[in-house]
Amino acid sequence: MSKTALIIIDMINTYEHKDADLLIPSVESVVPVMADLLRRARDRGVPVIYVNDNFGEWRSHHGEQLEQALAGPRADLVEPVKPDGDSLFVLKARHSIFFETPLSYLLTEQGIDRLVLTGQVTEQCVLYSALDAHIRHFDVVVPKDAVAHIHADLAEAALRMMERNMGALIRESHQLWA
Amino acid sequence: MSKTALIIIDMINTYEHKDADLLIPSVESVVPVMADLLRRARDRGVPVIYVNDNFGEWRSHHGEQLEQALAGPRADLVEPVKPDGDSLFVLKARHSIFFETPLSYLLTEQGIDRLVLTGQVTEQCVLYSALDAHIRHFDVVVPKDAVAHIHADLAEAALRMMERNMGALIRESHQLWA
Amino acid sequence: MSKTALIIIDMINTYEHKDADLLIPSVESVVPVMADLLRRARDRGVPVIYVNDNFGEWRSHHGEQLEQALAGPRADLVEPVKPDGDSLFVLKARHSIFFETPLSYLLTEQGIDRLVLTGQVTEQCVLYSALDAHIRHFDVVVPKDAVAHIHADLAEAALRMMERNMGALIRESHQLWA
Amino acid sequence: MSKTALIIIDMINTYEHKDADLLIPSVESVVPVMADLLRRARDRGVPVIYVNDNFGEWRSHHGEQLEQALAGPRADLVEPVKPDGDSLFVLKARHSIFFETPLSYLLTEQGIDRLVLTGQVTEQCVLYSALDAHIRHFDVVVPKDAVAHIHADLAEAALRMMERNMGALIRESHQLWA
Repeated sequence: MSKTALIIIDMINTYEHKDADLLIPSVESVVPVMADLLRRARDRGVPVIYVNDNFGEWRSHHGEQLEQALAGPRADLVEPVKPDGDSLFVLKARHSIFFETPLSYLLTEQGIDRLVLTGQVTEQCVLYSALDAHIRHFDVVVPKDAVAHIHADLAEAALRMMERNMGALIRESHQLWA
Repeated sequence: MSKTALIIIDMINTYEHKDADLLIPSVESVVPVMADLLRRARDRGVPVIYVNDNFGEWRSHHGEQLEQALAGPRADLVEPVKPDGDSLFVLKARHSIFFETPLSYLLTEQGIDRLVLTGQVTEQCVLYSALDAHIRHFDVVVPKDAVAHIHADLAEAALRMMERNMGALIRESHQLWA
Repeated sequence: MSKTALIIIDMINTYEHKDADLLIPSVESVVPVMADLLRRARDRGVPVIYVNDNFGEWRSHHGEQLEQALAGPRADLVEPVKPDGDSLFVLKARHSIFFETPLSYLLTEQGIDRLVLTGQVTEQCVLYSALDAHIRHFDVVVPKDAVAHIHADLAEAALRMMERNMGALIRESHQLWA
Repeated sequence: MSKTALIIIDMINTYEHKDADLLIPSVESVVPVMADLLRRARDRGVPVIYVNDNFGEWRSHHGEQLEQALAGPRADLVEPVKPDGDSLFVLKARHSIFFETPLSYLLTEQGIDRLVLTGQVTEQCVLYSALDAHIRHFDVVVPKDAVAHIHADLAEAALRMMERNMGALIRESHQLWA
């Protein structure tokens, strides 16, 4: 039997990086959808794993990252999707959630073989993470209204690549844990 | 100073896999361009590295792969771009040229920090390899007429992703080693 | 020119695990030596990187680990070698400091090519980390009075393996940053 | 149910490297034992996987390596344990059979979770491979009369490390597939 985890990518964020202006409108539409999805996942005991860039901050940890994001100007985009006491954490240094992180080890330890990928950016980290999941034989589901993009046309191409070439299921969030 | 290698992806091929029909017309246009590029690279002593899928054949090696491809119905697509005595080889088991292969180790050993990616498929292995090169801080150049695609629109999106999000230079082959 | 980092392995510890009884006498002799070494490294601006097991705690982070260790019965073994505001952190899930961690990426980013390995356990994590450093072409120095063992005879064999087969320099702590 | 493979490390060898003189007497005693073990494994359909260093030869493949070894002065140490048509191959560039090789992928694909490690050198590649297998949760068995050493005392310490710290079973060859 398949065991699923909900993965939340790079949502602990101060939104001060390059391209944030292009990204924010998409994040604004994603946050309420993701908050609902998170609630349904938690209600059913689905493991929730936050995988977040450390933004080169090898001194800080995820607690400090969260504090910073909640103290920042766009706390409204972080508060509704923030971790609770059961959330698991993996810090990443580069784009993919798998690159030089213990995620693959954590998933295997917990018997998880199916990932629901949400967060940002559809045509970047989400695409790369879907690829790295597929290469490692994890099944991938992407709720297309729970991933945020910078460029709509590249995001659309990325979703088609995931579906056609990485065996990903592309869904609406309301279809999951309904 | 930067040192460059020419990478030839998945061109040792019998063209009997799924989607080969969609791929072959693109390969037919790429092969003569790649043959020219290969000649210019060899003339200048640029290292040429073939990275090829083993297609699950853990018994055979690259010599047998080449023999099989040259004995197949589309030897005409392999003969002009085949390895010579100086070529280096890396076998891969999955999509990316870096995933569980010694390529990164080989490149570092030889002081190579810049990759010219050619071969197939633009919106699959070439895209994934460009990403994995970028994540590892190798510079990437893609001569867009020396990469073959299955779907023209996804290939076009893949080239834009490589340029915009992975810092790749997209070029015409005649611009390289001119 | 070579750039060195001081690596502190698994010293943020509550000492409640299996074999702790055998380990503690060795740690007691190591802590004051390591505290001196740490001070000299900090005085000279040598980067100090703590690499610590997460002990399967995917919920907690290094801040919480440290609090727990400092609240435990053997805080006296943690307090003298605890991180300061400049320390860098990498969490590991398994024995080697490199296995599915971003350490290799961090070191390369910072131009570090030489590691002074300290901490515990000489014939386990220190040995494995020396091997994984050597395989990745980092130079290794082990101050033999700043590493703690469970079994003295295996520790002695481990030090000889590191010296003979992994090109490590085995030194006394007072020889470093003297 | 557990599925086992027999792993043969670095036995395709011309014995011209550093330390060969110290190694050869041990190999001479190991070869007939390993030949018997190989025969029993083949009789029972146990997968046999040769993992061999490429010795920096990125041009050649395992067929050429074998030819060279069989044409060399110590062909007598290679002939009795050479691969047959069913053998699988993985080339490695560095010490461990797992480091930047597709071995982990191959084993998982084939449902193999238990490795019988044989070959050379007990206190080097065999030890490192046992560690990397253990870290990845493969079970390890080492038939101590089918592994060759350079230094008897370090080999003995390595076997104790594998048994005590890596959960390996240390056996006599005749106990396997008896």
